[in-house]
Amino acid sequence: MNMKIVSTKTAKLLPPNPTIGVFDSGFGGLTVLRALLPLIPGARYIYLGDTARLPYGSKSRETIARYAVSSAKFLEDQGADLLCVACNTASALALEDIEQALPIPVVGVIKPGAEAAVATAEAGETPRPSVLVLATAATTQSRAYAQALNALGLAATEKACPLLVPLVEEGWIDHHVTAEVLRIYLSEAFAEAPDVNTLLLGCTHYPLLQPIIERTLAELNHPMTIIDSAAATACRVAEYFPANPSGIPPICRFYATDSIEKFQRLGSGFLGQPLDEVHLLDLGG
Amino acid sequence: MNMKIVSTKTAKLLPPNPTIGVFDSGFGGLTVLRALLPLIPGARYIYLGDTARLPYGSKSRETIARYAVSSAKFLEDQGADLLCVACNTASALALEDIEQALPIPVVGVIKPGAEAAVATAEAGETPRPSVLVLATAATTQSRAYAQALNALGLAATEKACPLLVPLVEEGWIDHHVTAEVLRIYLSEAFAEAPDVNTLLLGCTHYPLLQPIIERTLAELNHPMTIIDSAAATACRVAEYFPANPSGIPPICRFYATDSIEKFQRLGSGFLGQPLDEVHLLDLGG
Repeated sequence: MNMKIVSTKTAKLLPPNPTIGVFDSGFGGLTVLRALLPLIPGARYIYLGDTARLPYGSKSRETIARYAVSSAKFLEDQGADLLCVACNTASALALEDIEQALPIPVVGVIKPGAEAAVATAEAGETPRPSVLVLATAATTQSRAYAQALNALGLAATEKACPLLVPLVEEGWIDHHVTAEVLRIYLSEAFAEAPDVNTLLLGCTHYPLLQPIIERTLAELNHPMTIIDSAAATACRVAEYFPANPSGIPPICRFYATDSIEKFQRLGSGFLGQPLDEVHLLDLGG
Repeated sequence: MNMKIVSTKTAKLLPPNPTIGVFDSGFGGLTVLRALLPLIPGARYIYLGDTARLPYGSKSRETIARYAVSSAKFLEDQGADLLCVACNTASALALEDIEQALPIPVVGVIKPGAEAAVATAEAGETPRPSVLVLATAATTQSRAYAQALNALGLAATEKACPLLVPLVEEGWIDHHVTAEVLRIYLSEAFAEAPDVNTLLLGCTHYPLLQPIIERTLAELNHPMTIIDSAAATACRVAEYFPANPSGIPPICRFYATDSIEKFQRLGSGFLGQPLDEVHLLDLGG
Protein backbone atom coordinates (compact mmCIF):
# COMPACT_ATOMS: atom_id res chain seq x y z
CA MET A 1 0.00 0.00 0.00
CA ASN A 2 2.62 2.54 1.02
CA MET A 3 5.02 0.81 -1.34
CA LYS A 4 2.92 1.94 -4.28
CA ILE A 5 3.08 5.55 -3.21
CA VAL A 6 6.76 5.59 -2.45
CA SER A 7 7.50 4.22 -5.88
CA THR A 8 5.25 6.61 -7.79
CA LYS A 9 5.74 9.90 -5.95
CA THR A 10 9.24 11.21 -5.39
CA ALA A 11 10.62 13.72 -2.97
CA LYS A 12 11.16 16.36 -5.63
CA LEU A 13 7.39 16.67 -6.12
CA LEU A 14 7.04 18.18 -2.70
CA PRO A 15 8.24 21.63 -1.62
CA PRO A 16 11.11 22.02 0.86
CA ASN A 17 8.81 23.88 3.28
CA PRO A 18 5.74 21.69 2.98
CA THR A 19 2.47 21.51 4.84
CA ILE A 20 2.20 18.15 6.55
CA GLY A 21 -1.12 16.88 7.83
CA VAL A 22 -1.01 14.55 10.81
CA PHE A 23 -4.14 12.70 11.82
CA ASP A 24 -5.08 10.58 14.80
CA SER A 25 -8.29 9.65 16.59
CA GLY A 26 -6.98 11.52 19.62
CA PHE A 27 -3.77 12.57 21.33
CA GLY A 28 -1.50 9.60 20.68
CA GLY A 29 -0.49 10.76 17.20
CA LEU A 30 1.23 13.70 18.83
CA THR A 31 4.10 11.27 19.56
CA VAL A 32 4.56 10.98 15.78
CA LEU A 33 4.42 14.76 15.39
CA ARG A 34 7.00 15.01 18.17
CA ALA A 35 9.32 12.77 16.11
CA LEU A 36 8.63 14.76 12.93
CA LEU A 37 9.47 18.24 14.30
CA PRO A 38 13.27 17.79 14.48
CA LEU A 39 13.35 15.80 11.21
CA ILE A 40 11.49 18.33 9.03
CA PRO A 41 11.86 21.57 10.98
CA GLY A 42 10.89 23.92 8.14
CA ALA A 43 7.44 22.43 7.66
CA ARG A 44 4.03 23.73 8.59
CA TYR A 45 2.13 21.08 10.54
CA ILE A 46 -1.62 20.69 10.82
CA TYR A 47 -2.67 18.12 13.39
CA LEU A 48 -6.20 16.79 13.71
CA GLY A 49 -7.34 14.76 16.71
CA ASP A 50 -10.82 13.34 16.10
CA THR A 51 -11.55 13.37 19.82
CA ALA A 52 -15.35 13.60 19.48
CA ARG A 53 -15.41 10.15 17.87
CA LEU A 54 -12.57 8.36 19.67
CA PRO A 55 -11.73 5.64 20.39
CA TYR A 56 -11.50 4.07 16.94
CA GLY A 57 -9.96 0.87 18.28
CA SER A 58 -13.21 -0.68 19.51
CA LYS A 59 -15.26 0.10 16.39
CA SER A 60 -15.99 -1.55 13.05
CA ARG A 61 -13.96 -1.20 9.86
CA GLU A 62 -16.77 0.65 8.09
CA THR A 63 -17.15 3.24 10.84
CA ILE A 64 -13.38 3.70 11.21
CA ALA A 65 -13.00 4.22 7.44
CA ARG A 66 -15.82 6.78 7.36
CA TYR A 67 -14.33 8.75 10.24
CA ALA A 68 -10.76 8.52 8.92
CA VAL A 69 -11.62 9.64 5.38
CA SER A 70 -13.58 12.68 6.59
CA SER A 71 -10.68 13.64 8.86
CA ALA A 72 -8.13 13.13 6.06
CA LYS A 73 -10.15 15.23 3.63
CA PHE A 74 -10.25 18.10 6.09
CA LEU A 75 -6.45 18.12 6.30
CA GLU A 76 -6.12 18.03 2.53
CA ASP A 77 -8.58 20.95 2.30
CA GLN A 78 -6.31 22.83 4.70
CA GLY A 79 -3.46 22.53 2.20
CA ALA A 80 -1.60 19.41 3.31
CA ASP A 81 1.03 18.29 0.78
CA LEU A 82 1.29 14.91 2.51
CA LEU A 83 -0.85 13.13 5.07
CA CYS A 84 0.62 11.11 7.90
CA VAL A 85 -1.95 8.75 9.40
CA ALA A 86 -0.51 8.60 12.92
CA CYS A 87 -3.31 6.36 14.18
CA ASN A 88 -2.56 2.64 14.17
CA THR A 89 -6.22 1.66 13.96
CA ALA A 90 -6.93 3.97 10.99
CA SER A 91 -3.69 2.85 9.31
CA ALA A 92 -4.62 -0.79 9.79
CA LEU A 93 -8.22 -0.57 8.61
CA ALA A 94 -8.59 2.48 6.39
CA LEU A 95 -5.28 3.31 4.67
CA GLU A 96 -6.50 2.25 1.24
CA ASP A 97 -9.76 4.17 1.67
CA ILE A 98 -7.77 7.29 2.58
CA GLU A 99 -5.33 6.83 -0.30
CA GLN A 100 -8.21 6.50 -2.74
CA ALA A 101 -9.93 9.59 -1.36
CA LEU A 102 -6.87 11.89 -1.48
CA PRO A 103 -4.57 12.96 -4.36
CA ILE A 104 -1.61 13.51 -2.01
CA PRO A 105 0.86 10.95 -0.61
CA VAL A 106 -0.37 9.11 2.46
CA VAL A 107 1.95 7.51 5.01
CA GLY A 108 0.58 5.17 7.66
CA VAL A 109 2.31 3.70 10.70
CA ILE A 110 1.96 -0.05 10.02
CA LYS A 111 4.59 -0.58 7.34
CA PRO A 112 7.22 1.71 8.93
CA GLY A 113 6.70 -0.14 12.22
CA ALA A 114 7.13 -3.51 10.53
CA GLU A 115 10.23 -2.30 8.69
CA ALA A 116 11.71 -1.03 11.95
CA ALA A 117 11.42 -4.58 13.28
CA VAL A 118 13.42 -5.84 10.29
CA ALA A 119 16.00 -3.09 10.69
CA THR A 120 16.43 -4.00 14.34
CA ALA A 121 17.06 -7.60 13.34
CA GLU A 122 19.53 -6.58 10.63
CA ALA A 123 21.36 -4.43 13.16
CA GLY A 124 21.94 -7.62 15.11
CA GLU A 125 19.96 -6.62 18.16
CA THR A 126 17.54 -9.52 17.81
CA PRO A 127 18.56 -12.78 16.13
CA ARG A 128 15.70 -14.37 14.12
CA PRO A 129 13.03 -11.87 15.19
CA SER A 130 9.66 -13.14 16.23
CA VAL A 131 7.45 -10.14 16.81
CA LEU A 132 4.68 -9.63 19.35
CA VAL A 133 2.39 -6.73 18.41
CA LEU A 134 0.35 -5.07 21.17
CA ALA A 135 -2.56 -3.07 19.72
CA THR A 136 -6.25 -2.23 19.94
CA ALA A 137 -8.96 -4.80 19.23
CA ALA A 138 -9.69 -3.35 15.78
CA THR A 139 -6.00 -3.27 14.78
CA THR A 140 -5.38 -6.88 15.83
CA GLN A 141 -8.59 -8.08 14.16
CA SER A 142 -7.46 -6.45 10.90
CA ARG A 143 -4.26 -8.59 10.93
CA ALA A 144 -2.54 -5.63 9.22
CA TYR A 145 0.63 -5.83 11.31
CA ALA A 146 0.85 -9.62 10.93
CA GLN A 147 0.52 -9.33 7.16
CA ALA A 148 3.12 -6.54 6.95
CA LEU A 149 5.55 -8.48 9.15
CA ASN A 150 4.99 -11.77 7.37
CA ALA A 151 5.58 -10.06 4.02
CA LEU A 152 8.98 -9.02 5.38
CA GLY A 153 9.74 -12.57 6.46
CA LEU A 154 9.08 -12.11 10.16
CA ALA A 155 6.89 -14.28 12.38
CA ALA A 156 4.20 -12.27 14.15
CA THR A 157 1.75 -12.69 17.02
CA GLU A 158 -0.85 -10.03 17.80
CA LYS A 159 -2.42 -9.33 21.18
CA ALA A 160 -5.39 -7.01 21.72
CA CYS A 161 -4.95 -4.83 24.82
CA PRO A 162 -8.23 -2.89 25.20
CA LEU A 163 -7.48 -1.60 28.70
CA LEU A 164 -4.14 0.10 27.97
CA VAL A 165 -5.57 3.22 26.33
CA PRO A 166 -8.05 3.85 29.18
CA LEU A 167 -5.23 3.30 31.71
CA VAL A 168 -3.01 5.86 29.94
CA GLU A 169 -5.91 8.30 29.76
CA GLU A 170 -6.57 7.79 33.49
CA GLY A 171 -2.94 8.86 33.98
CA TRP A 172 -1.94 5.50 35.52
CA ILE A 173 1.25 5.21 33.47
CA ASP A 174 3.35 4.21 36.50
CA HIS A 175 0.78 2.30 38.54
CA HIS A 176 0.56 -1.20 40.00
CA VAL A 177 -2.81 -1.83 38.31
CA THR A 178 -1.28 -1.06 34.90
CA ALA A 179 1.63 -3.39 35.74
CA GLU A 180 -0.82 -6.18 36.62
CA VAL A 181 -2.85 -5.64 33.41
CA LEU A 182 0.40 -5.78 31.42
CA ARG A 183 1.43 -8.97 33.24
CA ILE A 184 -1.89 -10.56 32.26
CA TYR A 185 -1.78 -9.46 28.61
CA LEU A 186 1.90 -10.37 28.16
CA SER A 187 1.57 -13.73 29.95
CA GLU A 188 -1.38 -14.65 27.72
CA ALA A 189 0.65 -13.71 24.64
CA PHE A 190 3.75 -15.64 25.82
CA ALA A 191 1.58 -18.73 26.48
CA GLU A 192 0.48 -18.59 22.86
CA ALA A 193 3.89 -17.67 21.39
CA PRO A 194 6.73 -18.43 23.85
CA ASP A 195 9.51 -17.54 21.40
CA VAL A 196 8.62 -13.87 20.71
CA ASN A 197 11.64 -11.63 21.26
CA THR A 198 10.62 -8.30 19.69
CA LEU A 199 7.77 -6.15 21.03
CA LEU A 200 6.09 -3.77 18.60
CA LEU A 201 3.97 -1.07 20.26
CA GLY A 202 1.07 -0.94 17.81
CA CYS A 203 -0.81 2.01 19.32
CA THR A 204 0.41 5.57 19.74
CA HIS A 205 -0.67 5.58 23.38
CA TYR A 206 1.67 2.75 24.31
CA PRO A 207 5.07 4.52 24.13
CA LEU A 208 4.03 6.37 27.30
CA LEU A 209 3.96 2.94 28.97
CA GLN A 210 7.43 1.87 27.78
CA PRO A 211 9.12 2.14 31.21
CA ILE A 212 6.47 0.02 32.93
CA ILE A 213 6.46 -2.44 30.03
CA GLU A 214 10.23 -2.85 30.42
CA ARG A 215 9.89 -3.47 34.15
CA THR A 216 7.10 -6.01 33.56
CA LEU A 217 9.16 -7.86 30.97
CA ALA A 218 12.05 -8.03 33.45
CA GLU A 219 9.74 -9.42 36.15
CA LEU A 220 8.43 -12.01 33.70
CA ASN A 221 12.06 -12.87 32.86
CA HIS A 222 11.28 -12.39 29.18
CA PRO A 223 13.62 -9.73 27.71
CA MET A 224 12.47 -8.18 24.42
CA THR A 225 13.58 -5.47 22.02
CA ILE A 226 10.88 -2.78 22.04
CA ILE A 227 9.94 -1.02 18.81
CA ASP A 228 7.82 2.11 18.59
CA SER A 229 6.51 2.93 15.13
CA ALA A 230 6.39 6.70 15.78
CA ALA A 231 10.08 7.30 15.05
CA ALA A 232 10.06 4.92 12.06
CA THR A 233 7.00 6.64 10.61
CA ALA A 234 8.57 10.08 10.97
CA CYS A 235 11.64 8.85 9.05
CA ARG A 236 9.39 7.54 6.29
CA VAL A 237 7.66 10.92 5.99
CA ALA A 238 11.03 12.70 5.87
CA GLU A 239 11.98 10.66 2.79
CA TYR A 240 9.44 12.67 0.79
CA PHE A 241 11.17 15.98 1.38
CA PRO A 242 14.55 17.45 0.48
CA ALA A 243 16.80 18.30 3.38
CA ASN A 244 15.81 21.67 4.75
CA PRO A 245 18.71 23.83 5.89
CA SER A 246 16.59 26.98 6.15
CA GLY A 247 16.48 27.04 9.92
CA ILE A 248 12.87 28.19 9.84
CA PRO A 249 11.17 26.86 12.99
CA PRO A 250 8.18 24.58 12.46
CA ILE A 251 4.68 26.02 12.68
CA CYS A 252 2.02 23.86 14.32
CA ARG A 253 -1.71 24.28 14.16
CA PHE A 254 -4.01 21.87 16.00
CA TYR A 255 -7.62 20.88 15.50
CA ALA A 256 -9.75 18.78 17.82
CA THR A 257 -13.35 17.68 17.30
CA ASP A 258 -14.10 17.73 21.05
CA SER A 259 -13.04 19.92 24.00
CA ILE A 260 -10.07 22.18 23.21
CA GLU A 261 -9.24 22.49 26.90
CA LYS A 262 -8.93 18.73 27.33
CA PHE A 263 -6.87 18.46 24.14
CA GLN A 264 -4.42 21.06 25.41
CA ARG A 265 -4.25 19.51 28.86
CA LEU A 266 -3.72 15.87 27.82
CA GLY A 267 -1.93 16.53 24.54
CA SER A 268 1.08 18.32 25.97
CA GLY A 269 2.20 15.08 27.66
CA PHE A 270 2.30 13.34 24.27
CA LEU A 271 3.91 16.21 22.37
CA GLY A 272 6.36 17.09 25.11
CA GLN A 273 5.55 20.78 24.86
CA PRO A 274 2.51 23.05 25.26
CA LEU A 275 -0.13 23.14 22.51
CA ASP A 276 -0.84 26.79 21.93
CA GLU A 277 -3.08 27.08 18.92
CA VAL A 278 -5.91 24.53 19.18
CA HIS A 279 -9.14 25.02 17.22
CA LEU A 280 -12.49 23.27 17.67
CA LEU A 281 -13.64 21.48 14.52
CA ASP A 282 -17.08 20.07 13.72
CA LEU A 283 -16.88 17.15 11.28
CA GLY A 284 -20.61 16.48 11.67
CA GLY A 285 -22.26 13.60 13.42
CA MET B 1 -36.48 19.22 34.58
CA ASN B 2 -38.46 15.98 34.65
CA MET B 3 -40.73 17.61 37.20
CA LYS B 4 -41.96 20.03 34.57
CA ILE B 5 -42.91 17.23 32.21
CA VAL B 6 -44.57 15.08 34.83
CA SER B 7 -46.75 18.00 35.86
CA THR B 8 -47.80 19.02 32.35
CA LYS B 9 -48.29 15.69 30.57
CA THR B 10 -50.53 13.09 32.12
CA ALA B 11 -50.82 9.40 31.57
CA LYS B 12 -54.11 9.65 29.71
CA LEU B 13 -52.36 11.46 26.85
CA LEU B 14 -50.48 8.30 25.96
CA PRO B 15 -51.97 5.15 24.44
CA PRO B 16 -52.13 1.89 26.41
CA ASN B 17 -49.96 0.17 23.80
CA PRO B 18 -47.41 2.90 23.25
CA THR B 19 -44.17 3.10 21.37
CA ILE B 20 -41.34 3.78 23.81
CA GLY B 21 -37.97 4.99 22.59
CA VAL B 22 -34.98 4.03 24.73
CA PHE B 23 -31.66 5.69 24.03
CA ASP B 24 -28.13 5.06 25.28
CA SER B 25 -24.63 5.67 23.97
CA GLY B 26 -24.15 1.91 23.87
CA PHE B 27 -25.32 -1.29 25.51
CA GLY B 28 -25.77 -0.22 29.14
CA GLY B 29 -29.24 1.23 28.57
CA LEU B 30 -30.44 -2.29 27.84
CA THR B 31 -30.55 -2.76 31.63
CA VAL B 32 -33.24 -0.06 31.70
CA LEU B 33 -35.11 -1.75 28.84
CA ARG B 34 -34.83 -5.03 30.75
CA ALA B 35 -36.59 -3.36 33.70
CA LEU B 36 -39.24 -1.83 31.41
CA LEU B 37 -40.33 -5.04 29.66
CA PRO B 38 -42.22 -6.59 32.60
CA LEU B 39 -43.62 -3.20 33.70
CA ILE B 40 -45.15 -2.19 30.34
CA PRO B 41 -45.46 -5.50 28.49
CA GLY B 42 -47.88 -4.29 25.80
CA ALA B 43 -45.55 -1.62 24.45
CA ARG B 44 -43.49 -1.50 21.30
CA TYR B 45 -39.88 -0.64 22.13
CA ILE B 46 -37.32 0.99 19.88
CA TYR B 47 -33.81 0.99 21.33
CA LEU B 48 -30.95 3.02 19.90
CA GLY B 49 -27.33 2.43 20.95
CA ASP B 50 -25.10 5.16 19.52
CA THR B 51 -22.15 2.78 19.44
CA ALA B 52 -20.26 4.55 16.65
CA ARG B 53 -19.81 7.59 18.89
CA LEU B 54 -19.45 6.02 22.34
CA PRO B 55 -18.26 6.60 24.96
CA TYR B 56 -20.06 9.82 25.83
CA GLY B 57 -18.63 9.91 29.35
CA SER B 58 -15.21 11.27 28.40
CA LYS B 59 -16.49 13.99 26.05
CA SER B 60 -17.62 17.60 26.34
CA ARG B 61 -21.13 18.83 27.10
CA GLU B 62 -21.51 20.34 23.63
CA THR B 63 -20.55 17.13 21.84
CA ILE B 64 -22.71 14.98 24.12
CA ALA B 65 -25.72 17.25 23.55
CA ARG B 66 -25.25 17.16 19.78
CA TYR B 67 -25.02 13.38 19.72
CA ALA B 68 -27.91 12.90 22.16
CA VAL B 69 -30.30 15.23 20.33
CA SER B 70 -29.68 13.59 16.96
CA SER B 71 -30.25 10.16 18.52
CA ALA B 72 -33.42 11.34 20.29
CA LYS B 73 -34.83 12.86 17.11
CA PHE B 74 -34.36 9.58 15.28
CA LEU B 75 -36.44 7.76 17.88
CA GLU B 76 -39.18 10.38 17.71
CA ASP B 77 -39.19 10.06 13.91
CA GLN B 78 -39.69 6.32 14.39
CA GLY B 79 -42.93 7.04 16.24
CA ALA B 80 -41.89 7.08 19.90
CA ASP B 81 -44.66 8.37 22.20
CA LEU B 82 -42.15 8.81 25.02
CA LEU B 83 -38.37 8.87 25.14
CA CYS B 84 -36.40 7.25 27.95
CA VAL B 85 -32.83 8.56 28.08
CA ALA B 86 -31.22 5.48 29.59
CA CYS B 87 -27.73 7.00 29.45
CA ASN B 88 -26.53 8.67 32.63
CA THR B 89 -24.11 10.96 30.80
CA ALA B 90 -26.73 12.17 28.30
CA SER B 91 -29.29 12.56 31.12
CA ALA B 92 -26.82 14.58 33.18
CA LEU B 93 -25.61 16.88 30.41
CA ALA B 94 -28.24 17.02 27.69
CA LEU B 95 -31.70 16.36 29.14
CA GLU B 96 -32.89 19.95 28.66
CA ASP B 97 -31.52 20.02 25.10
CA ILE B 98 -33.44 16.81 24.34
CA GLU B 99 -36.64 18.10 25.99
CA GLN B 100 -36.47 21.30 23.96
CA ALA B 101 -35.89 19.39 20.73
CA LEU B 102 -38.77 16.90 21.14
CA PRO B 103 -42.54 17.40 21.59
CA ILE B 104 -42.92 14.11 23.51
CA PRO B 105 -42.28 13.39 27.19
CA VAL B 106 -38.65 12.70 28.05
CA VAL B 107 -37.54 10.70 31.10
CA GLY B 108 -33.90 10.65 32.17
CA VAL B 109 -32.20 8.48 34.77
CA ILE B 110 -30.82 11.13 37.15
CA LYS B 111 -33.94 12.20 39.00
CA PRO B 112 -35.39 8.67 39.35
CA GLY B 113 -32.03 7.53 40.71
CA ALA B 114 -31.95 10.36 43.24
CA GLU B 115 -35.55 9.68 44.27
CA ALA B 116 -34.74 6.02 44.75
CA ALA B 117 -32.11 7.07 47.28
CA VAL B 118 -34.75 9.03 49.20
CA ALA B 119 -37.20 6.13 49.01
CA THR B 120 -34.56 3.80 50.40
CA ALA B 121 -34.01 6.16 53.30
CA GLU B 122 -37.74 6.50 53.95
CA ALA B 123 -38.04 2.72 53.95
CA GLY B 124 -35.65 2.76 56.89
CA GLU B 125 -32.86 0.89 55.17
CA THR B 126 -30.39 3.74 55.56
CA PRO B 127 -30.72 6.28 58.38
CA ARG B 128 -29.73 9.84 57.36
CA PRO B 129 -28.55 8.90 53.85
CA SER B 130 -25.31 10.32 52.60
CA VAL B 131 -24.96 9.27 48.98
CA LEU B 132 -21.82 8.37 47.03
CA VAL B 133 -22.40 8.48 43.26
CA LEU B 134 -20.06 6.49 41.01
CA ALA B 135 -20.22 7.73 37.42
CA THR B 136 -18.30 8.75 34.31
CA ALA B 137 -16.07 11.82 34.23
CA ALA B 138 -18.63 13.84 32.26
CA THR B 139 -21.50 12.92 34.60
CA THR B 140 -19.56 13.83 37.74
CA GLN B 141 -18.31 17.08 36.21
CA SER B 142 -21.90 18.05 35.43
CA ARG B 143 -22.81 17.77 39.16
CA ALA B 144 -26.28 16.68 37.99
CA TYR B 145 -26.61 13.90 40.56
CA ALA B 146 -25.33 16.11 43.38
CA GLN B 147 -27.83 18.80 42.49
CA ALA B 148 -30.73 16.33 42.24
CA LEU B 149 -29.79 14.71 45.56
CA ASN B 150 -29.23 18.02 47.34
CA ALA B 151 -32.63 19.25 46.09
CA LEU B 152 -34.14 16.23 47.84
CA GLY B 153 -32.28 17.03 51.05
CA LEU B 154 -29.57 14.40 50.72
CA ALA B 155 -25.82 14.90 51.04
CA ALA B 156 -23.92 13.75 47.96
CA THR B 157 -20.36 12.97 46.95
CA GLU B 158 -19.47 12.13 43.36
CA LYS B 159 -16.56 9.98 42.19
CA ALA B 160 -15.48 9.65 38.55
CA CYS B 161 -14.59 6.04 37.67
CA PRO B 162 -13.26 6.17 34.07
CA LEU B 163 -11.88 2.62 34.10
CA LEU B 164 -15.07 0.78 35.06
CA VAL B 165 -16.72 0.92 31.63
CA PRO B 166 -13.60 -0.40 29.84
CA LEU B 167 -13.28 -3.16 32.46
CA VAL B 168 -16.91 -4.22 31.92
CA GLU B 169 -16.41 -4.13 28.15
CA GLU B 170 -13.25 -6.26 28.54
CA GLY B 171 -15.51 -8.77 30.30
CA TRP B 172 -13.58 -8.52 33.59
CA ILE B 173 -16.71 -8.29 35.72
CA ASP B 174 -15.42 -10.85 38.25
CA HIS B 175 -11.69 -10.18 38.11
CA HIS B 176 -9.03 -9.25 40.66
CA VAL B 177 -7.95 -6.21 38.61
CA THR B 178 -11.49 -4.85 38.69
CA ALA B 179 -11.61 -5.47 42.45
CA GLU B 180 -8.35 -3.54 42.89
CA VAL B 181 -9.59 -0.63 40.74
CA LEU B 182 -12.80 -0.52 42.81
CA ARG B 183 -10.75 -0.58 46.05
CA ILE B 184 -8.79 2.43 44.79
CA TYR B 185 -11.80 4.43 43.62
CA LEU B 186 -13.88 3.64 46.73
CA SER B 187 -10.98 4.29 49.14
CA GLU B 188 -10.37 7.69 47.53
CA ALA B 189 -14.07 8.50 47.86
CA PHE B 190 -14.21 7.35 51.50
CA ALA B 191 -11.15 9.48 52.32
CA GLU B 192 -13.05 12.49 51.04
CA ALA B 193 -16.44 11.57 52.51
CA PRO B 194 -16.07 8.95 55.30
CA ASP B 195 -19.76 9.02 56.27
CA VAL B 196 -21.33 7.95 52.95
CA ASN B 197 -23.69 5.02 53.46
CA THR B 198 -25.64 4.81 50.17
CA LEU B 199 -24.01 3.95 46.85
CA LEU B 200 -25.74 5.13 43.69
CA LEU B 201 -24.56 3.42 40.49
CA GLY B 202 -24.60 6.38 38.12
CA CYS B 203 -23.76 4.54 34.90
CA THR B 204 -25.75 1.81 33.21
CA HIS B 205 -22.64 -0.37 32.90
CA TYR B 206 -22.14 -0.54 36.67
CA PRO B 207 -25.03 -2.85 37.67
CA LEU B 208 -23.06 -5.68 36.04
CA LEU B 209 -20.37 -5.00 38.67
CA GLN B 210 -22.75 -5.08 41.65
CA PRO B 211 -21.51 -8.45 43.03
CA ILE B 212 -17.84 -7.39 42.96
CA ILE B 213 -18.74 -3.97 44.37
CA GLU B 214 -20.51 -5.68 47.29
CA ARG B 215 -17.48 -7.89 47.95
CA THR B 216 -15.13 -4.89 47.80
CA LEU B 217 -17.29 -2.92 50.23
CA ALA B 218 -17.21 -5.89 52.61
CA GLU B 219 -13.42 -6.07 52.37
CA LEU B 220 -13.17 -2.34 53.04
CA ASN B 221 -15.50 -2.86 56.03
CA HIS B 222 -17.76 -0.12 54.70
CA PRO B 223 -21.30 -1.51 54.22
CA MET B 224 -23.53 0.53 51.93
CA THR B 225 -27.01 0.31 50.45
CA ILE B 226 -26.62 0.03 46.67
CA ILE B 227 -29.05 1.83 44.37
CA ASP B 228 -29.35 1.23 40.65
CA SER B 229 -31.30 3.86 38.74
CA ALA B 230 -32.44 1.42 36.02
CA ALA B 231 -35.36 0.02 38.02
CA ALA B 232 -36.35 3.45 39.36
CA THR B 233 -36.28 4.92 35.86
CA ALA B 234 -38.46 2.12 34.50
CA CYS B 235 -41.03 2.82 37.24
CA ARG B 236 -41.02 6.50 36.33
CA VAL B 237 -41.70 5.66 32.68
CA ALA B 238 -44.55 3.32 33.69
CA GLU B 239 -46.30 6.22 35.43
CA TYR B 240 -47.06 7.70 32.01
CA PHE B 241 -49.14 4.72 30.87
CA PRO B 242 -52.35 3.10 32.03
CA ALA B 243 -52.07 -0.43 33.31
CA ASN B 244 -52.02 -2.80 30.38
CA PRO B 245 -53.90 -6.05 30.93
CA SER B 246 -53.87 -6.97 27.25
CA GLY B 247 -51.27 -9.69 27.57
CA ILE B 248 -49.74 -8.67 24.25
CA PRO B 249 -46.02 -9.51 24.42
CA PRO B 250 -43.63 -6.58 23.97
CA ILE B 251 -42.08 -5.97 20.56
CA CYS B 252 -38.44 -4.82 20.51
CA ARG B 253 -36.56 -3.29 17.62
CA PHE B 254 -32.91 -2.33 18.02
CA TYR B 255 -30.70 0.15 16.19
CA ALA B 256 -26.93 0.53 16.54
CA THR B 257 -24.70 3.08 14.81
CA ASP B 258 -21.73 0.67 14.72
CA SER B 259 -21.30 -3.11 14.22
CA ILE B 260 -24.57 -5.04 14.53
CA GLU B 261 -22.69 -8.23 15.31
CA LYS B 262 -20.93 -6.66 18.28
CA PHE B 263 -24.18 -5.11 19.50
CA GLN B 264 -25.90 -8.49 19.46
CA ARG B 265 -22.96 -10.22 21.09
CA LEU B 266 -22.39 -7.76 23.96
CA GLY B 267 -25.95 -6.53 24.31
CA SER B 268 -27.52 -9.84 25.25
CA GLY B 269 -25.60 -9.80 28.55
CA PHE B 270 -27.17 -6.47 29.46
CA LEU B 271 -30.70 -7.34 28.28
CA GLY B 272 -30.63 -10.87 29.65
CA GLN B 273 -31.97 -12.33 26.40
CA PRO B 274 -30.93 -12.48 22.74
CA LEU B 275 -31.29 -9.40 20.54
CA ASP B 276 -32.87 -10.64 17.36
CA GLU B 277 -33.74 -7.64 15.24
CA VAL B 278 -30.79 -5.21 15.16
CA HIS B 279 -30.45 -2.64 12.38
CA LEU B 280 -27.43 -0.56 11.42
CA LEU B 281 -28.11 3.18 11.55
CA ASP B 282 -26.03 6.02 10.12
CA LEU B 283 -26.54 9.25 12.04
CA GLY B 284 -23.79 10.95 10.05
CA GLY B 285 -20.37 11.98 11.23
